[in-house]
This record gives sequence, C-alpha cells and structure tokens, in this order.
Amino acid sequence: MKISKLHLKTPDEAETVFYQAFTHCDADVMAGLWADQGVVCVHPGSGAIIGYNAIIRSWASIFSNVQRTEMKYTSINRVVSKKLTVSLIAEELLSSEKIEAVVLATNVYQKFDSGWLMTGHHASLVQQHSRGQTLQ
Amino acid sequence: MKISKLHLKTPDEAETVFYQAFTHCDADVMAGLWADQGVVCVHPGSGAIIGYNAIIRSWASIFSNVQRTEMKYTSINRVVSKKLTVSLIAEELLSSEKIEAVVLATNVYQKFDSGWLMTGHHASLVQQHSRGQTLQ
Repeated sequence: MKISKLHLKTPDEAETVFYQAFTHCDADVMAGLWADQGVVCVHPGSGAIIGYNAIIRSWASIFSNVQRTEMKYTSINRVVSKKLTVSLIAEELLSSEKIEAVVLATNVYQKFDSGWLMTGHHASLVQQHSRGQTLQ
Repeated sequence: MKISKLHLKTPDEAETVFYQAFTHCDADVMAGLWADQGVVCVHPGSGAIIGYNAIIRSWASIFSNVQRTEMKYTSINRVVSKKLTVSLIAEELLSSEKIEAVVLATNVYQKFDSGWLMTGHHASLVQQHSRGQTLQ
C-alpha cells in the first residue's frame, strides 16, 4: 500500500492527529504521520523500535484487537524550536471512564519541507505510588 | 548555595557532562547542567517532576547513598536542530560488570545565550523480555 504523508502546518496539528489516530486505532493515519528517516519509538516497558517500517508495524499490532482507545491526554511541558518540538504528555488510559493506567509520553515533532511529522515517541507507565506527581 | 551554570558549546558536551555527573553521583554538576525554566524530568516508573528545584532535589536524593553509578551508555538516535537536540540513549546499569538493568532515556538539550543546557530527561526501564530490541 502506498502511504500518503500528512501535510501538517504546526506541531499542535501533529499532536492532535497523533492522539486521534491513537484513540481511533487508525494505523493508516499513524503511517502518514511518522517521518521516514531518523525515527524511534518506545512503547511502555519496551525496548527501542528503530526505523519507520518496524514502528508502523508496532502500532498496527497494538491496534489489531481494539476499535478504540479510551484516553484523556494532557500537555505537561513543551520545548519548541523552529524545526523541532518536544512535548511531554500525560496519557490517562480509561476503562468505563475510570483511570486504568497513566502513561507519560515524550513526543518529538519535526518540520520537513512538506510540514510537521512525528519522529519520536517515548512512553512509560507511571507506577501507582508515584501517580500523584503526574497530575500536577 | 549559589549554583554556577555550565557553559557548554555543543549538545555532545552537555551529554558527556550529564553522564559524568550521573556516573560520579555529582549533584552540583547536575545543578549546573539543568536550565532554570521549562524543565521536566521523569525517572523510571515515576511521574513527571516539573521545575528546576524539584528536579535537582530528585537527583540529590538518587545520589545520596551512592558514590558511583556503574553504567555504560550508548546513543540510539538523535534529532538535531539549531537550538534543540533530542537524544535517545540506552543506559546499561552494571553491577560487578554484569548488566543489572537497561534503561532508555530521552534527553533534551537546549541552546541558550550562555550555551547548551539540559531541559528534559525521560527514563524508562526496559522489561526483561524486550531487552533484545534495545541493543540493536
């Protein structure tokens, strides 16, 4: 399948698209959001997945048995430069509107000629005893 | 105590200083390496620590009972822009030269008028079963 890359004007747009794709378990949108080169992805508790194809496969695998991820996400910190944005997000994963898990994700968005794409995602599970810190 | 900020010419220098401070458990160097504003730190399994003072306290606490951290670190990926660098590092924590744990860390270095300082550190423990991925 030929993947069409998205054309996103701001890191905010890239972030919105990322969480829409995550929430709707949409591997095609995810494939259009990630850059081709220099990309790395760390799912909670996992090693580093390097390379576009392996990263897209990992998302397709995560999405394979679910239709929708119930999630609320909150921006904690953002560092911005002209061509690079690093965003720390608290992801609250919900089940029947109750918080099942809290994940922290550092997302990296980079500006290319065609617009902003994702080049990094590093997620980690917050252990129960330290959750209080997350939701400052 | 008055903290003197370091004057570092490149993100490489900032990275070297970070791991020297980590290895030698040197909270003073760590205090000189972190920027004052817009900083965030996530230790493995923990919530987000926001703000310079809280971050420096957390490192001082980690260093309080140890003289030295045995560690080998390897760069996995780096995204660079003029004023911002994001670096993914595999940290192998050693005990008697054996690997005790593997941690992945996304480090963020930012260029200020005085030089490069650290503005982000997000670390997560790699669970045993997925370690193979890390050391690609």
